Amino acid sequence: MEKMRVAIVGFGNVAREALAAVEAASDMEAAGIVLRDPKKAAALQSETKLPVVCDVNELGEVDAAILAIASRAIPEVAPHYLAKGINTVDSFDIHGEAVMDLRKKLDAAGKAGGSVAVICAGWDPGTDSVVRAILEGIAPKGITYTNFGPGMSMGHTVAVKNIPGVRDALSLTLPKGTGLHKRHVYVELAPGADFEAVRKTILEDPYFVHDETYVYPTEDVKQLIDLGHGVLMERKGVSGRSHNQRITFSMTLMNPAATAQVMVSSARAGKKQRPGCYTMLEIPPLDYLEGERESLLRRLV
Amino acid sequence: MEKMRVAIVGFGNVAREALAAVEAASDMEAAGIVLRDPKKAAALQSETKLPVVCDVNELGEVDAAILAIASRAIPEVAPHYLAKGINTVDSFDIHGEAVMDLRKKLDAAGKAGGSVAVICAGWDPGTDSVVRAILEGIAPKGITYTNFGPGMSMGHTVAVKNIPGVRDALSLTLPKGTGLHKRHVYVELAPGADFEAVRKTILEDPYFVHDETYVYPTEDVKQLIDLGHGVLMERKGVSGRSHNQRITFSMTLMNPAATAQVMVSSARAGKKQRPGCYTMLEIPPLDYLEGERESLLRRLV
Repeated sequence: MEKMRVAIVGFGNVAREALAAVEAASDMEAAGIVLRDPKKAAALQSETKLPVVCDVNELGEVDAAILAIASRAIPEVAPHYLAKGINTVDSFDIHGEAVMDLRKKLDAAGKAGGSVAVICAGWDPGTDSVVRAILEGIAPKGITYTNFGPGMSMGHTVAVKNIPGVRDALSLTLPKGTGLHKRHVYVELAPGADFEAVRKTILEDPYFVHDETYVYPTEDVKQLIDLGHGVLMERKGVSGRSHNQRITFSMTLMNPAATAQVMVSSARAGKKQRPGCYTMLEIPPLDYLEGERESLLRRLV
Repeated sequence: MEKMRVAIVGFGNVAREALAAVEAASDMEAAGIVLRDPKKAAALQSETKLPVVCDVNELGEVDAAILAIASRAIPEVAPHYLAKGINTVDSFDIHGEAVMDLRKKLDAAGKAGGSVAVICAGWDPGTDSVVRAILEGIAPKGITYTNFGPGMSMGHTVAVKNIPGVRDALSLTLPKGTGLHKRHVYVELAPGADFEAVRKTILEDPYFVHDETYVYPTEDVKQLIDLGHGVLMERKGVSGRSHNQRITFSMTLMNPAATAQVMVSSARAGKKQRPGCYTMLEIPPLDYLEGERESLLRRLV
């Protein structure tokens, strides 16, 4: 069987782990790394034997691109790949209406390009979204609480890093229980930046505006970083006429590795879908897995 | 929107809960109950306003049949419905090759009849199977342990009840940890039956032959029955190059209600698939849920 050729776009934490996940999969090979900035590409090329390019066209045939870049860049970057017939996977993590807008845009781009976009494919949104649906299939009436942390939120950290006056940042998510969270944000200021102005911008950011948020100045963010994270989902609900059905799902994870692995598994699943855009809720779970269909079913059913 | 008309086949514990789940769903209505035995059908008819019939043809238009009957009867009964263009759902719970045989047979029957069979649609096999796949999508290398109980196993109990000399029975599953189980079987003997002969038959039955099994005689099985059950699935695995990713999924449930609810949710999903046979691993998770697609995505992604 021919291996899927997968390009990694970006080279942050998630991208590095995505490369490791592609290399660990026997049905895939890494086509190369795409970095928009020629200086960064040249610097990275000196560290790796894989081609590091500024445009995916330089990598020859590519089946899928793992877009390990900031969520806010996805709506502009993904259509560029889909138009070339290259499937995309992202871990877009802005919940709500933004997901619907992205899905509509990439669905049109995928159908026009004969390609597949899998969106919101991380662990949350992503596999947690799938679990939430499964919980409702078992007990349709009731409430699901999703409790995150303690751990670094990559989306929130990137959001803070993009704020003017911030040199480096870390946003920690801490569970308060019953789906409520607080956030602890550690910021290393750029020279001359005003802490109070930065703090105010953070508190008003859509990523933070709904949560109890504490902002702390710190000298060296790097010393605080641990990439572990976790989640606890709890549902108490009703199956038919039977109440108090209790279901929990919990994980403790190396966060970027889990996100990256789900993206890589989703690249495999994307290949099996018809052109268009899919959330993980719209993909048969078997499609994520490596191996022959019947032998997977024998093992997993 | 027109409501799905759902027939319930059988009227044991799962069937009664399936009827409650259909009645709780605003997109479905119960078409009636099918019991093969005319005497049992007549007796039940005096208790309910729903039509109780011996042949599904008497119920008018039916979209789907919930086959709440013994697993061993499914391969013969399901094709009868599929040939009429009626979708089927079963909770066939004999793992391994028997699933593959059933899938092949019902796939042909469904394609010939323009209908859809969803098989192995309970909580295990069923939603647990889906969770096992999701766990491998997050951490492809590693081991998943599925620990059941304590609780009554319906499949094992039915298997014991079918053994000659058994008047009534209860089979309890108890977890030993790391995916190992013991079984406690309580049997109420028929007059003149030999306990040792019954015990030997149980221990040699394919349902029990792989497990540590204890068989106890008892005077009145009914006094021991509690329909609660549970499961704990644990995976420790590797995402890309990151080890010790820990994931757990656990439930404590009214067992027949959960099985029945998953069957009813699967009837909804079956309607959205092309003709053929599907395990739950082969169905997009969103398809199980009631409601408009985009509003479900807004809430769950």
